[in-house]
Amino acid sequence: MPSIDVCFSPALLPLYDLTGKIAVAVDVLRATSSMVTALANGVTHIAPVSELEACLAYRNQGYLVAAERDGIKADGFDLGNSPFHYLDDDYTGRLLAITTTNGTQAIRQSRTADEVLIGAFLNVGAVAEYVRRAGKDVVVVCAGWKGLFNLEDTLFAGALAERLQGDFALNNDATLAAFHLYQAAKPDMLGFLSKSSHVQRLERLHILKDTEFCLQEDTYTVVPVLKGDFLVPTE
Amino acid sequence: MPSIDVCFSPALLPLYDLTGKIAVAVDVLRATSSMVTALANGVTHIAPVSELEACLAYRNQGYLVAAERDGIKADGFDLGNSPFHYLDDDYTGRLLAITTTNGTQAIRQSRTADEVLIGAFLNVGAVAEYVRRAGKDVVVVCAGWKGLFNLEDTLFAGALAERLQGDFALNNDATLAAFHLYQAAKPDMLGFLSKSSHVQRLERLHILKDTEFCLQEDTYTVVPVLKGDFLVPTE
Repeated sequence: MPSIDVCFSPALLPLYDLTGKIAVAVDVLRATSSMVTALANGVTHIAPVSELEACLAYRNQGYLVAAERDGIKADGFDLGNSPFHYLDDDYTGRLLAITTTNGTQAIRQSRTADEVLIGAFLNVGAVAEYVRRAGKDVVVVCAGWKGLFNLEDTLFAGALAERLQGDFALNNDATLAAFHLYQAAKPDMLGFLSKSSHVQRLERLHILKDTEFCLQEDTYTVVPVLKGDFLVPTE
Repeated sequence: MPSIDVCFSPALLPLYDLTGKIAVAVDVLRATSSMVTALANGVTHIAPVSELEACLAYRNQGYLVAAERDGIKADGFDLGNSPFHYLDDDYTGRLLAITTTNGTQAIRQSRTADEVLIGAFLNVGAVAEYVRRAGKDVVVVCAGWKGLFNLEDTLFAGALAERLQGDFALNNDATLAAFHLYQAAKPDMLGFLSKSSHVQRLERLHILKDTEFCLQEDTYTVVPVLKGDFLVPTE
């Protein structure tokens, strides 16, 4: 039986061997939720980029460029890190380069895995279905917040573990913790998260509607996968 | 209001600033439980040592020497890492040097804090009382298992957070997670932990009675504190 494990911070990733496994990179608030939304709404591929300048340089190649630092859109970019940015226009066939505080780092550091998928509550069912069919061990790589543990990415790991229960072993401590936390949070996710540091930060930025959107499950069926330097929908 | 925070692994400790704070090092199964038991039963001070050879060398100075590696007593040492070892003889006035897989590392890496205390379920109430009186910010430093998150140390952090609730801020994500997990586990701690990697490891080693002993709350009132290179009871 394959297993599901959870890495709570990119800083702990050197302790995990991703060889032969599927990594699911997650930054629920809001990088991976925005990426899933973008690909579900016509964007054909996404370049996840670590640095602002490298991201901006993609504009010369016809890309939309998106950047967030410390929760707000960076100066000079077309888009920030809100999933709503990808719903308010027609982006069919567009290419997107994006850099965010934590999310793009988690993706790039997961590259030793056989496959790197992008997870969010918005596509959790589709991710579960994909990895169930693949039958490989899975490691959820939480973006965290500047290296620290965060609740919302952990809850995603718990939601994925719940979907895989029965077909995947859930017996490591990190997965058990994520699973139990998700059980506790599920009846009122926003209430559960309302005391968390990141949701309080987003509330101060008046983007609570982003949080509500990002906590919806199974809105989209797209599963972004890293091919070379780009995220594209799985076929 | 002072705050309580939780560091889930010594590997994440570089992200925490312990200056001016109290660190509570915890390795529930079983290093810190054994240390608390030893000091509660007559041992006057403990040298926590990282390396086996350095630990053994303390014997020449009249110390009892204790060592555990991968869950079992290391060859050539007087004692292992079971709290029962410190209950089956009269150790009044004895000195102890101890090295364990994870626990002693967590202690030594916490030294930038104002004070380093040793926590276990066995003395959780006394630790809570001590830090409440001190009124400083607290960081629980979980030993984990070879750098990875573990459940039992996290549950201790949750138990301490529960005791400090009202007097300390619990609003960071790691503390909220520990608090919720402890609420879920409290009715049946052993049952909750029975799926965890470390308890399964201890079960394979036939030391389930150690786990049961280590999960008891408030058996002892001693609060070990690091003074120079040694752990001694607080006055």
